[in-house]
Amino acid sequence: MQAQLIALDWGTSSLRAYKLGPAGVVLEQRSLAFGIMHLPVEPRDIAGTRCSNGFELAFDAACGDWLDAQPTLAVIACGMVGSAQGWSEAAYRNTPVDVASLGQALHRVRSLRGVDVYIVPGVIEQVGLPNVMRGEETQVLGVLQNLRAGGELLIGLPGSHSKWVEVADGCITHFDTFMTGELFAVLSKHSILGRTQKTPEHFQADAFDRGVQVARSSDGQRGVLSTLFSARTLGLTAELGAEQQPDYLSGLLIGHELAGLPAGAKHTPIILVGAAPLCARYQRALALCDFAHVSLAQEATERGLWQLALAAGLIQPALEA
Amino acid sequence: MQAQLIALDWGTSSLRAYKLGPAGVVLEQRSLAFGIMHLPVEPRDIAGTRCSNGFELAFDAACGDWLDAQPTLAVIACGMVGSAQGWSEAAYRNTPVDVASLGQALHRVRSLRGVDVYIVPGVIEQVGLPNVMRGEETQVLGVLQNLRAGGELLIGLPGSHSKWVEVADGCITHFDTFMTGELFAVLSKHSILGRTQKTPEHFQADAFDRGVQVARSSDGQRGVLSTLFSARTLGLTAELGAEQQPDYLSGLLIGHELAGLPAGAKHTPIILVGAAPLCARYQRALALCDFAHVSLAQEATERGLWQLALAAGLIQPALEA
Repeated sequence: MQAQLIALDWGTSSLRAYKLGPAGVVLEQRSLAFGIMHLPVEPRDIAGTRCSNGFELAFDAACGDWLDAQPTLAVIACGMVGSAQGWSEAAYRNTPVDVASLGQALHRVRSLRGVDVYIVPGVIEQVGLPNVMRGEETQVLGVLQNLRAGGELLIGLPGSHSKWVEVADGCITHFDTFMTGELFAVLSKHSILGRTQKTPEHFQADAFDRGVQVARSSDGQRGVLSTLFSARTLGLTAELGAEQQPDYLSGLLIGHELAGLPAGAKHTPIILVGAAPLCARYQRALALCDFAHVSLAQEATERGLWQLALAAGLIQPALEA
Repeated sequence: MQAQLIALDWGTSSLRAYKLGPAGVVLEQRSLAFGIMHLPVEPRDIAGTRCSNGFELAFDAACGDWLDAQPTLAVIACGMVGSAQGWSEAAYRNTPVDVASLGQALHRVRSLRGVDVYIVPGVIEQVGLPNVMRGEETQVLGVLQNLRAGGELLIGLPGSHSKWVEVADGCITHFDTFMTGELFAVLSKHSILGRTQKTPEHFQADAFDRGVQVARSSDGQRGVLSTLFSARTLGLTAELGAEQQPDYLSGLLIGHELAGLPAGAKHTPIILVGAAPLCARYQRALALCDFAHVSLAQEATERGLWQLALAAGLIQPALEA
């Protein structure tokens, strides 16, 4: 099948490349370790020129052969590649945004081989405390592709910096960021809580659930700065074994994150996007906290990039057979 | 003036030794770096015996000469020296506790030179989530020494693990722990927030106040996992300079801690105990958050140790002149 688009999901720690065919079907995909903070450094010839630019080298490694075979393929990219530390800065767009408005705002950078790469700008919300995202906006728009238009949605993207994105009538209207994943990592690695933790062989469901329940209990009302210490004291009192402490902490932090969602969220359809094991934790915690309508989305990034490329006119919609 | 008691404040990272005279007046004091995690390792002769025990070596360095001069001086100690990782474990006492009950529960360890060291047990609360403290209970009892008996008090001990201790009629009835100081440290050193921070030459009062205000705003209702990210985004939007970010984060975390205090705390007399610069931050934040009655206490540890030694009968009360 003839390819129509190269779509790059280019974040801080990894670079995923998709070769997409008609209607956005994935023909081939690759995952490279060349996130923008881990670019290749070994100079190489690209298009007859000696090159030491890490972005060019990573781009060539990701899809140079695809472009050799089809030099006129359009290329679109999202994620931290468009940040100030990226290949070329794609200035944030203010909320509200939808596929049409974001597709009109792609930022072009010309690669050494003469191919234009269109970078999706991140999104900023400047009502109240500022909030930013890069990459998640594309995933959200990819999720929306398969849904009937209209109505309100809450899309959860768990991770180092979890995003919760409110969507109304196909438009991103508001979002929040929770530093849950990064906090879990730094506390486990660098705080007193990590000293008594032991990584379990299997997921410790009871400990995880207990953490979630503490977050939503009256103890949890005092906030996570207070409940955190229980990950230590429940160990001191032999109520939590060393292997239960990591999942207890995970449940506790996720529980506090969910407690921070707007009150109406319990009755809003929620869609989770992200790595399957992490989404499974959130799904479990959401159920414990009485969120009624939760489902999972797949392939959100590549679908979002396809939709944005269509909106930008980089590719043409397939004719119905 | 003749000494009556040696009082040791022996924590994780430091060891403070006080030589106390009649009525607990401080005759001499020393601060050593020999916390229980930083004990001396160089073997030395103590009381005619070659000794390599770090606790004995630190004890000898702290007050060996005082004991040489007055071998029958009583010795009392509080803090992590009584933990499972300490010199000898002094099992936690359950709340409620007061000077009389804690003074009756001192844990004795005999030193190489034949002198008994009486260790104050830590306190545990096992109602709801367990909570523990070691050392702070002594400071609280020291604060109470100078107050008229009766009434309710809230005593704040800011630090890596801030304690807020409720006192009724001279008795410790309840306490909470907030991991505020440690969280500030690990986030500044190991998270994305630290990457854009620059340590300022002077305290950035406006940034600190802004952090406190955000914690108590409607944004703050979503919890600290959410507001934390603003320490980054306010930098991205040029609302906070690199040198303002550390004090913003400090104010934000302290503000969230104060938001976790019981509702009645705003009208309860509050006494702060701890390092002066940190207490000044808390005093400022408490004022911003409309806590009405806040004062500072000094020399709480040595006073508490004196009171406990009296209650234990290690020393005799001074006769009124």
